[in-house]
Amino acid sequence: MTSTTSAQSKITSLSASHAVELYARLRDSRQLSLDLAAPLSDEDQTVQSMDDASPTKWHLAHTTWFYEAFVLGPHLPGYQPFSDDFEYCFNSYYEAKGDRQPRARRGLLTRPTAQEVRDYRGYVDEALAKLFQRGLAADASDKVGALIELGINHEQQHQELLLTDILSLFAVSSLWPAYRQPQPKPKPEAVADVAPVAWITFDGGVHKVGHDGNGFFYDNEGPRHDVLLQQFRLASRCVTNAEWLAFIDDGGYRDPLLWLADGWATVKEFVWEAPGYWEQRHGVWHQMTLEGLRPIDTRAPVSHVSYFEANAFAHWAGKRLPTEFEWEVASASYSLKGNDLSTNALRPRPAVSADAERLAQPFGDVWEWTGSAYQPYPGYRPAPGAIGEYNGKFMVSQQVLRGGSCVTPPGHIRATYRNFFFPHQRWQFTGLRLAEDAA
Amino acid sequence: MTSTTSAQSKITSLSASHAVELYARLRDSRQLSLDLAAPLSDEDQTVQSMDDASPTKWHLAHTTWFYEAFVLGPHLPGYQPFSDDFEYCFNSYYEAKGDRQPRARRGLLTRPTAQEVRDYRGYVDEALAKLFQRGLAADASDKVGALIELGINHEQQHQELLLTDILSLFAVSSLWPAYRQPQPKPKPEAVADVAPVAWITFDGGVHKVGHDGNGFFYDNEGPRHDVLLQQFRLASRCVTNAEWLAFIDDGGYRDPLLWLADGWATVKEFVWEAPGYWEQRHGVWHQMTLEGLRPIDTRAPVSHVSYFEANAFAHWAGKRLPTEFEWEVASASYSLKGNDLSTNALRPRPAVSADAERLAQPFGDVWEWTGSAYQPYPGYRPAPGAIGEYNGKFMVSQQVLRGGSCVTPPGHIRATYRNFFFPHQRWQFTGLRLAEDAA
Amino acid sequence: MTSTTSAQSKITSLSASHAVELYARLRDSRQLSLDLAAPLSDEDQTVQSMDDASPTKWHLAHTTWFYEAFVLGPHLPGYQPFSDDFEYCFNSYYEAKGDRQPRARRGLLTRPTAQEVRDYRGYVDEALAKLFQRGLAADASDKVGALIELGINHEQQHQELLLTDILSLFAVSSLWPAYRQPQPKPKPEAVADVAPVAWITFDGGVHKVGHDGNGFFYDNEGPRHDVLLQQFRLASRCVTNAEWLAFIDDGGYRDPLLWLADGWATVKEFVWEAPGYWEQRHGVWHQMTLEGLRPIDTRAPVSHVSYFEANAFAHWAGKRLPTEFEWEVASASYSLKGNDLSTNALRPRPAVSADAERLAQPFGDVWEWTGSAYQPYPGYRPAPGAIGEYNGKFMVSQQVLRGGSCVTPPGHIRATYRNFFFPHQRWQFTGLRLAEDAA
Amino acid sequence: MTSTTSAQSKITSLSASHAVELYARLRDSRQLSLDLAAPLSDEDQTVQSMDDASPTKWHLAHTTWFYEAFVLGPHLPGYQPFSDDFEYCFNSYYEAKGDRQPRARRGLLTRPTAQEVRDYRGYVDEALAKLFQRGLAADASDKVGALIELGINHEQQHQELLLTDILSLFAVSSLWPAYRQPQPKPKPEAVADVAPVAWITFDGGVHKVGHDGNGFFYDNEGPRHDVLLQQFRLASRCVTNAEWLAFIDDGGYRDPLLWLADGWATVKEFVWEAPGYWEQRHGVWHQMTLEGLRPIDTRAPVSHVSYFEANAFAHWAGKRLPTEFEWEVASASYSLKGNDLSTNALRPRPAVSADAERLAQPFGDVWEWTGSAYQPYPGYRPAPGAIGEYNGKFMVSQQVLRGGSCVTPPGHIRATYRNFFFPHQRWQFTGLRLAEDAA
Repeated sequence: MTSTTSAQSKITSLSASHAVELYARLRDSRQLSLDLAAPLSDEDQTVQSMDDASPTKWHLAHTTWFYEAFVLGPHLPGYQPFSDDFEYCFNSYYEAKGDRQPRARRGLLTRPTAQEVRDYRGYVDEALAKLFQRGLAADASDKVGALIELGINHEQQHQELLLTDILSLFAVSSLWPAYRQPQPKPKPEAVADVAPVAWITFDGGVHKVGHDGNGFFYDNEGPRHDVLLQQFRLASRCVTNAEWLAFIDDGGYRDPLLWLADGWATVKEFVWEAPGYWEQRHGVWHQMTLEGLRPIDTRAPVSHVSYFEANAFAHWAGKRLPTEFEWEVASASYSLKGNDLSTNALRPRPAVSADAERLAQPFGDVWEWTGSAYQPYPGYRPAPGAIGEYNGKFMVSQQVLRGGSCVTPPGHIRATYRNFFFPHQRWQFTGLRLAEDAA
Repeated sequence: MTSTTSAQSKITSLSASHAVELYARLRDSRQLSLDLAAPLSDEDQTVQSMDDASPTKWHLAHTTWFYEAFVLGPHLPGYQPFSDDFEYCFNSYYEAKGDRQPRARRGLLTRPTAQEVRDYRGYVDEALAKLFQRGLAADASDKVGALIELGINHEQQHQELLLTDILSLFAVSSLWPAYRQPQPKPKPEAVADVAPVAWITFDGGVHKVGHDGNGFFYDNEGPRHDVLLQQFRLASRCVTNAEWLAFIDDGGYRDPLLWLADGWATVKEFVWEAPGYWEQRHGVWHQMTLEGLRPIDTRAPVSHVSYFEANAFAHWAGKRLPTEFEWEVASASYSLKGNDLSTNALRPRPAVSADAERLAQPFGDVWEWTGSAYQPYPGYRPAPGAIGEYNGKFMVSQQVLRGGSCVTPPGHIRATYRNFFFPHQRWQFTGLRLAEDAA
Repeated sequence: MTSTTSAQSKITSLSASHAVELYARLRDSRQLSLDLAAPLSDEDQTVQSMDDASPTKWHLAHTTWFYEAFVLGPHLPGYQPFSDDFEYCFNSYYEAKGDRQPRARRGLLTRPTAQEVRDYRGYVDEALAKLFQRGLAADASDKVGALIELGINHEQQHQELLLTDILSLFAVSSLWPAYRQPQPKPKPEAVADVAPVAWITFDGGVHKVGHDGNGFFYDNEGPRHDVLLQQFRLASRCVTNAEWLAFIDDGGYRDPLLWLADGWATVKEFVWEAPGYWEQRHGVWHQMTLEGLRPIDTRAPVSHVSYFEANAFAHWAGKRLPTEFEWEVASASYSLKGNDLSTNALRPRPAVSADAERLAQPFGDVWEWTGSAYQPYPGYRPAPGAIGEYNGKFMVSQQVLRGGSCVTPPGHIRATYRNFFFPHQRWQFTGLRLAEDAA
Repeated sequence: MTSTTSAQSKITSLSASHAVELYARLRDSRQLSLDLAAPLSDEDQTVQSMDDASPTKWHLAHTTWFYEAFVLGPHLPGYQPFSDDFEYCFNSYYEAKGDRQPRARRGLLTRPTAQEVRDYRGYVDEALAKLFQRGLAADASDKVGALIELGINHEQQHQELLLTDILSLFAVSSLWPAYRQPQPKPKPEAVADVAPVAWITFDGGVHKVGHDGNGFFYDNEGPRHDVLLQQFRLASRCVTNAEWLAFIDDGGYRDPLLWLADGWATVKEFVWEAPGYWEQRHGVWHQMTLEGLRPIDTRAPVSHVSYFEANAFAHWAGKRLPTEFEWEVASASYSLKGNDLSTNALRPRPAVSADAERLAQPFGDVWEWTGSAYQPYPGYRPAPGAIGEYNGKFMVSQQVLRGGSCVTPPGHIRATYRNFFFPHQRWQFTGLRLAEDAA
């Protein structure tokens, strides 16, 4: 793609190598969204299953609008928006950007069509190429580079949501459609049972947590600061489906004393008897997956459990959830490589580590609920303007999750990364790892 | 289409000419649904705007399932359903046919796709052709002929709903998409104002109402019976948008004394200030139509008003709504020709009659709310089985409408035809004609 | 009470005897409300069980406000309202009288206290005595007499509601409190079984229905007019609890094909398995009554069934409900005497008639659901102003009931009397009598 | 009261002086509840204004049931419960104690009557006297003493709720009833303006927080542990009504960028324009108080603001809320004496401290929202059984408040005391004190 190359070569004040690398990642990221949507019909891309989920088409368009609103509009002279209507349609929650399509009604937008959204993506991608090609004013390039970095990370978040939201949509259909056909079965040696949990001890004392500022991070990961921890232990791996079945069999969903009060109310209201997407067929537990309705893999980490469920399980097990800082301190030295979107498994896999001294699967597989409420770090201040709405305004009533999942795009996760959901939500790939006090 | 012709020639015990005629109408009816859906993308066909409305795709499939469930399954030996899942997906409300996709969640079915539904239609159409071709057992042919007749009429109802439901969907979009591009403006002579209302007197006494049994009719149109009427007068034409604007300007939507109690509660709950789909743009009232958002045509009949509104308007005007029997007696002698779907106007048109002695536009344009609750006629008994669920089980809390609308398929309407909606509903092309006592 | 007598003697233009009689009835009516409230604590009188029901205290005050608003304020010179706040508190639904306490929040009014309400009643009663004592201006007396007549009838309606509303309140308590202690058991001879249903035939043809204008009637009972009926038959008595048990045992509450669509939705939403207030205790059906939770009397008319249930039962029995005009024509010649509030039974009693040629219990025991929607009679016009809101604005979506109940005050019911409730409501003493076509 | 004295003298293994002191406090506490209810009619005591609030009568009975369920039943041999029904009626949320009256329907219980509840209190108080009189088994006395201590503290919490709940009830009445008549106006010298806010600096470093175990405390106040704080500053006094008016006037309730996302949704849903109970009358802001509707005292601390509002205000002011640990460290050395229930003011009073170096009003006046989510302390474990449900099961989605209010009973508050409410709730006397980073 000649024009791209020349575009990169003309970037002025971003360092040339940074510009080349940034543009390459931008293009890959833009392409990945299209690849993820490719197995879906235009109809699949239009509907939303519930208020919390968005249509595929909306994800494709919103991530594009983000560049239009925050990068091209302000920083590409003469840029004309693709359509005057799209800001209303595809703004997610930026109050500073004005009125928008109500979240619960995103699935009513049959227009613009999926094809128009793809055209929109092409139009914006071309403008982004032009932005790189023509270079940036010296005084703006750092800022624009940072915004593009944010745009890439933003799109990665929506890539994960695109997959969890389409799973949510297919799960409400009695036809149980598969996002993709089931992959060939793993070889026999792979089906060995997982190792029992080992308990790994971590030292108390003052630790640094939060992002150190080198490389991209979200504002909610900072400021880096000291926390005081007591000695603690973490389970070597996540809780498995087999362990969850034991919880079910022991009446876990029927004993109010195991549950937070709001959790028990939720169990009763929605008649929960098992994790999300679990269905009993002919006496066998199945789970709706991106490959359709499949028998439970007892060795794999349990997934699609809410904070309420994770907390009740920990209570039942006589343990607790780790705090987000315990988790961060424990995982800080680990490789970020794991069962994320790059493995293309699209489901959590059994822990394979044989080393009882090391955490298995800290990154990938399932987001791990922590016992920490989502709150600002000391000294946290949101950025001014719309970008400042990214994280800070959600800092109440939610719980922090750590570690990424099997559908998190590679390169997106970090030890300091803070995800957050309400305690009843469970349409993400969410699981848990137990902790205990060391004393 | 040779096979069709030969099919028809082989029909055994339906009279040959009846079979030919019936099959021709069946084919036309099946084609019309596809034609009506043709301007819509597959995405447009998938979504529903609200619980009361269904996706286009669902209409296309449900009308097809009707033949499968009631005609082909029971009467075409060896018939295999297209898919085991479709009865669940596309049964509307027949309790006798078992569980089904909840009405409010029809719009979540991205699978089967619109293309699969079109294939389903082709498959069933072919089987219907085969049914005609192979002939029918003598003892079944009358019954099967009646069921096909019912199927055609059933599909006509859904053709009307298809259009009103897509209008409802497009009306919730801030883009105001048009089902079709606006037609060329009418010629100058057509824009003359409508004539003032004349009051036409009809005699009291005992009248016959209800269908006489010649030709197709729904069970709720019978039994034909005597009713006793007092002398009454009907307005020569429907209430116009201009007249409705006067009602608005006079505070009609702000005076509780004009309204039924439930109507006033509805006005307040939904903050009604004008008929459905009315929007003020730059101080001018527009209405969302199948050609997009268009300025109000003050001469045309008001449309998309609920029974609550129609009743309040009549109260305000010092008149009342006609009973369904007054309407039927008054209209019995009129031609059924009017501004229905065959004119392709897709909107109510101004009354053009210059004859103050005759009712203008009794058929077509807008369904006319009557003051009659939807109740069974004396001696009414629903048919046994699923077909008996067609009409009878809705005979409570609804009001009767008469006369058909601008999107009623030609051949579907009759003077005895009873449509019915809840008093708050207004997404159909619903208007009113005033009445008064003659005394 | 001397002052009263002298008051009556001074009435000017109402005929003296009418004034005496009217004032006596007024006093009795005012006293009856207090008597009915006497067994209740002030707390019992304050709370409402649901939106449809009102607190006892509210009934006591609202019926008093009615006189203040429509009689004393306009017609007793110098009358000062007891309190400026009470119009807001105790207006029921008269839009013409301004804003008011929302219906669903009447039970939040702990102030004014029950004692203040009793004081309010005393204050207004004294003013009413003064009104009679001082006489009325000649030109107003007919009108005021009519308003007092309306006030008495209005209070009678609320006396019935007071009892059904307190039953509703006590029925939500797990303590099942009794409004009064159970009465002694009937003598042995009284417990004989009821006679089987006989079918009594009534002639078709043109009949007069509606009130003839002699004596008090509500505006919705007129104008008197002709209706054309076909020959029909009515059951000699109401459906009994024993018959209803057969319906339950036959799966009546589980077969959707017996039900109106809205009825079936209601059955599922509220998990109805039996009439209102029925509870199974140790395998025996009981019903909450004004004497607490009591075993079902199988011989008594079924009560607390909704229109949906009555309609489904009739469907199950292969019969139908009578129309309101059939009921009126059939009952027109019967004595109004029956098991109403004057018997002090406070519950429906078994039919005792041995005469198979005559209707048993047309008046009293249970309100009988008819198959007629509540609609205006030909020529009906509501009165102007607030009084005109009494009946007319409810004429949609409800069904007519006839005949009064065991808690209807004596003198309140007539053959032309039209009661009306929504088809799902069943907190009144509502039952049914079956009908069939004679042909 | 002779019997009491002798009762105390017989206590065996509690130290005699402890028993005397405990019993005296128990009696005072039991009496205080009755005193607080005394100004209320039985009707006032029966109704609840909303799901979050309970009737006075229920508070009186529930605090009594607590002794019956946890003290008398297990520990007074031969104790007979007052009524078999009361556990169902008056259990609040102890799942371990079985089914109970749904919280939102507590206001439907007109039976037991308020008088029966008073009798219940007498019966239980007598049994408690007997428990003290007869002495306790040596092995149980510590445990029973602890349970009685818990019972006293439990009742204190409900004494505060009794007042805030009755305020909530009276606030929904258009009559604005007063719990008590307004007190005489303060003297002129008292109406001087409050001092401007001073900022008081506190050192960072490791601090001990949580209860040290001497004396009564709730389980959620422990374990005592180290926390690491950064240097910070607290405002010398709470935010006043005058300051809140400035926030309102500056459009605070109209600017979404100031608010948490859930907070803004709440503002829009409930159309919040001012703190709870604020009403504009003739252009002047009033607030509903326990003395009825009164003009705002601009110098007093703002009250009845939710966490959402407190957070938005802090954002608007360019400050933040303190964490609960900052608050605790800062207040640890202060006297607990303040404007609590013992002053009988029943409303927050202006800060009077002239000393800019010291916190004014840390205890009493208003509960101060902190920026800390309500979470367990490290090592926290709830007690086993029903008592363990007291605090732990609410540790999600709520925020911590500190310091007590003008209706907190004296002796109830401590520097380590953690109150908690959902971020939208504001029917308590809740306000805020600002904080800022010291750097």
